[in-house]
Amino acid sequence: MPDDFICLGIDPGLARVGYGAIVQSGSELRALNYGCITTTPDMGFTDRLLVIYESLQEQINLCSPDLISVERLFFGRNTTTAEYVYQARGIIMLLSAMKKIPVIEPKPNQIKLKLCGTGKADKKKIQLTVQSVLNLECIPKPDDTADALAAAITGLAFHSLTLT
Amino acid sequence: MPDDFICLGIDPGLARVGYGAIVQSGSELRALNYGCITTTPDMGFTDRLLVIYESLQEQINLCSPDLISVERLFFGRNTTTAEYVYQARGIIMLLSAMKKIPVIEPKPNQIKLKLCGTGKADKKKIQLTVQSVLNLECIPKPDDTADALAAAITGLAFHSLTLT
Repeated sequence: MPDDFICLGIDPGLARVGYGAIVQSGSELRALNYGCITTTPDMGFTDRLLVIYESLQEQINLCSPDLISVERLFFGRNTTTAEYVYQARGIIMLLSAMKKIPVIEPKPNQIKLKLCGTGKADKKKIQLTVQSVLNLECIPKPDDTADALAAAITGLAFHSLTLT
Repeated sequence: MPDDFICLGIDPGLARVGYGAIVQSGSELRALNYGCITTTPDMGFTDRLLVIYESLQEQINLCSPDLISVERLFFGRNTTTAEYVYQARGIIMLLSAMKKIPVIEPKPNQIKLKLCGTGKADKKKIQLTVQSVLNLECIPKPDDTADALAAAITGLAFHSLTLT
């Protein structure tokens, strides 16, 4: 019987950081804990980073992942948002180094391709696939949580590929 | 006699993070410790963030600053570099929140204006001004170190303004 393997998926952001831990036992996937860390502008930028750091550290301690899958970000012209969200993403990457946990960074279209067989799947289709694969009663909310679970499923799929 | 006030200036980056601590006693400025944290691509991205975190934490512990002055970044079209440098900058901002030290974020042209009286001063002129203001034997190297000291001088100037 194969050992359990746990992947923590993360959808990076500043106002909302989605997270979702999934355990793989053989071919079975099961969601452990999942949710969304939220911060608000009135907290001030550096304190928002600290909330993300402390909350995510707690989640990592809770699920002890073997792998962290952090979705890559893409921005168009909105560079002011990008500036702050990338700084928040740095906190996630730092935590993975502190805990000595390997990281993969799937692109959004790689996640879509892995879950739905096409890099152009829409958000709803991704969410329904997450719900189906993990056998959940309802679609995880907010969207950031579902996106984090999708990143975790992708992380596990990439990990399985490296084993074959 | 006024209390000493210490500002740690930081020039953010991924390959090089310049830092420079300056103490203000009345109208006199004196450089404490200054230098440059370096990381190389072969370390891997997340470990580079960890080196920056640990090295900067050590510098903060050493000088116990009352204020941290972190230069803002500006990028043109080189968004790949921006992506990584902003993530590294997030580590600096996180540390300031962990240590509960106020941060100011002067723009490059604000630093030039404060040191040289014009927002269009060139790098050499900035470096000579840093050397002169701090009464240093030679221009601090690499450029990132001089830039960090320039950010610290600007931070102290802004702080003095808030007192008047």
